Amino acid sequence: MLKVSLISIGDELCIGQVVNTNAAWLAQEVTKTGAQVVTHSVIGDEPEMLKSELSRLSEFSDIIITTGGLGPTHDDITKDILCDYFDSKLIFNDEAYKNVESIFARLNRTVTERNRLQAMIPDVAIPLKNNRGTAPGIYIERDGKHFFSLPGVPAEMKGLAEDHILDIIKTLITKDEHDVCKYKVLNFAGIPESSLADLLQIDDTVLSGRTLAFLPNYKGIRLRIGANAENMDIADKNIAGLESYILEKASEYFIGFNDENISSAIGKKLIERNQTLSVAESCTGGLLGGFITDMAGSSAYFEGGIISYSNSIKIDSLGVSEDTINLYGAVSEETAIEMASKVRTKFKTDFGLSITGIAGPTGGTEEKPVGTVWIGLSTSDSTLAYKYNFGNNREYNRERAVSMALVLLHNYLCK
Amino acid sequence: MLKVSLISIGDELCIGQVVNTNAAWLAQEVTKTGAQVVTHSVIGDEPEMLKSELSRLSEFSDIIITTGGLGPTHDDITKDILCDYFDSKLIFNDEAYKNVESIFARLNRTVTERNRLQAMIPDVAIPLKNNRGTAPGIYIERDGKHFFSLPGVPAEMKGLAEDHILDIIKTLITKDEHDVCKYKVLNFAGIPESSLADLLQIDDTVLSGRTLAFLPNYKGIRLRIGANAENMDIADKNIAGLESYILEKASEYFIGFNDENISSAIGKKLIERNQTLSVAESCTGGLLGGFITDMAGSSAYFEGGIISYSNSIKIDSLGVSEDTINLYGAVSEETAIEMASKVRTKFKTDFGLSITGIAGPTGGTEEKPVGTVWIGLSTSDSTLAYKYNFGNNREYNRERAVSMALVLLHNYLCK
Repeated sequence: MLKVSLISIGDELCIGQVVNTNAAWLAQEVTKTGAQVVTHSVIGDEPEMLKSELSRLSEFSDIIITTGGLGPTHDDITKDILCDYFDSKLIFNDEAYKNVESIFARLNRTVTERNRLQAMIPDVAIPLKNNRGTAPGIYIERDGKHFFSLPGVPAEMKGLAEDHILDIIKTLITKDEHDVCKYKVLNFAGIPESSLADLLQIDDTVLSGRTLAFLPNYKGIRLRIGANAENMDIADKNIAGLESYILEKASEYFIGFNDENISSAIGKKLIERNQTLSVAESCTGGLLGGFITDMAGSSAYFEGGIISYSNSIKIDSLGVSEDTINLYGAVSEETAIEMASKVRTKFKTDFGLSITGIAGPTGGTEEKPVGTVWIGLSTSDSTLAYKYNFGNNREYNRERAVSMALVLLHNYLCK
Repeated sequence: MLKVSLISIGDELCIGQVVNTNAAWLAQEVTKTGAQVVTHSVIGDEPEMLKSELSRLSEFSDIIITTGGLGPTHDDITKDILCDYFDSKLIFNDEAYKNVESIFARLNRTVTERNRLQAMIPDVAIPLKNNRGTAPGIYIERDGKHFFSLPGVPAEMKGLAEDHILDIIKTLITKDEHDVCKYKVLNFAGIPESSLADLLQIDDTVLSGRTLAFLPNYKGIRLRIGANAENMDIADKNIAGLESYILEKASEYFIGFNDENISSAIGKKLIERNQTLSVAESCTGGLLGGFITDMAGSSAYFEGGIISYSNSIKIDSLGVSEDTINLYGAVSEETAIEMASKVRTKFKTDFGLSITGIAGPTGGTEEKPVGTVWIGLSTSDSTLAYKYNFGNNREYNRERAVSMALVLLHNYLCK
């Protein structure tokens, strides 16, 4: 197995001001090649710390990838430490400079002395062309170990990984005949974790050397199948066996593979059925529409919606009856039903989804505590609303309400 | 300085399936106490790896906090490794078991043998009461070093940190008279990074021992002031000096401290002015409304909006003229202006914000490439629209459009 370690450099990461999405993205893409990510570490802009991490990780990794610290300011320590660690010095690289020049020409700007520094790289390194920014990626091979340094800007980091590093890793795996590990994720919704486990009845015989991990969250359950093998084809075959076992038992709740989520699953179903959707949102304020339109191509089935955050908009623009709101309240079965059915007729769609709830932190009562949410689904047959309580965190409440509304529609579409 | 290191345990983190938001949250909260987070590492469910990390990090850290691997399944290695590392054994803890029982009683469920395992903790450990789940936190002190282990479930991890660990850290800092480091973030919007830098004219004399980091993203620029001192009061005073220097020079673009974002800044201004807002969204599909209503209390100024994803909704529900769309297209200055002004009059608000654009990946033309976005702002004085091109990534396009719409409104409110 080809072992890969990641180092993310930056005070903003170390103190938690910025979430380390770079490492997650890079780990995911590296994992797809069949290599094994063994660890990531986050360190501040501390030269000694970076040096000791390079030396520690190279003891058990074939490949080390650093992100961050490649800019032209005094905080940017990576290139100096690489020189120190590899007993090298910075030299001017023509190829890297041409890239800086062409980027500045495109922007109609003059290259300053500071920008020119971007073309300095350690003399033992190969520069990797950065198509999205001025800092070249850096590649150093020493004693059979491969060191890559990338900028911390996500778009540049991703571009350099896609344009160079992932291919280099794939080549190394094939050339040195490394074993590979492969994963596939099957996403499920509308069933609790324990019920899914009961349905699947997984034991060592079923697994037969493969691994299966359950990752539940409020959007559903992600099942991750893992297999180690001599090559990707054999790993694929091993995964396929367990995958069909699982799908046979629980196809009803299956929504898609890997990054496919409930929003894409609903999109597919609606396109198949040639049907359309609209939404009426109160406490989620547009998040449901926002999530549905995350999907490219959603205009094929999503017409739009009304964000009826205030009661007057519920009444005037959506057409909920004033009596309903006065009698039952804005957060009620009756209001959720009217919201869903009114938006469906008004927007002339096949389905209408509505959400009305008390997101918190204030506004709760004994009868309707914070977290109370009514979700309505209107179809050509009927309009029904369902009550939930998602607890007292405003952010979770809103996210869960969006997710549950989609689960309700998905379950209806699967019937 | 009290030095803290974090270890996040789990295959799902190591392969990048899950982004390590736990470490960012924990690092941020620990940093607020005045302690210094020196590193985080992510490892898979690998016993040997965890053991070597405990031993490595304890060489230069006063406190080590692990998250993950505390559940009752065979993947959960943390407790066994703690026993191994501290030459301890698991014993049944009555106090921890009472918590398991009371949680199951609340859920009307019977405690199974597997759940009972949650009450087993290393005999050298103190259990920390988990108010949101069954796995107790674990606290072990050895040779002046403090080891904490928390579950990986974010809500439980946060609860245990807030209920126990952060206070223990604060007490240690005071008792042992550690120096502290403190940060404060000043958020700016509506000005490019280089112009803000020119405006501020920061040099070593201005800094005088404090640090200042620029963190730009599409939402604006975060300026982080850092100061080390004998105690929090002195650190506060040091920060305050630089803070007032900065605010004197750039107050015009200031939107708030720390977690305050442009959405909360707008909310404050609208409440001050007793004015209201509505939105009309096309390519963002509700994200703008969703972002505005992230703020608790937004019902004081946000009435709602229309998600007019399709042209027919733009015409029928929002009242944009069919001629405008036929003549200029749905993504045009004219349509953005009508969307903003129509939603403002329809929803009887002081301001109307509109977004219409080509989010991509398809739908672009030579004249209007993917990323073209028109943003409209309607006020009692006038309605104007502004054109942007945010590039070809659908997700970034939508996020930037939302952010730029808010910047436009914010700039208007600050005039």
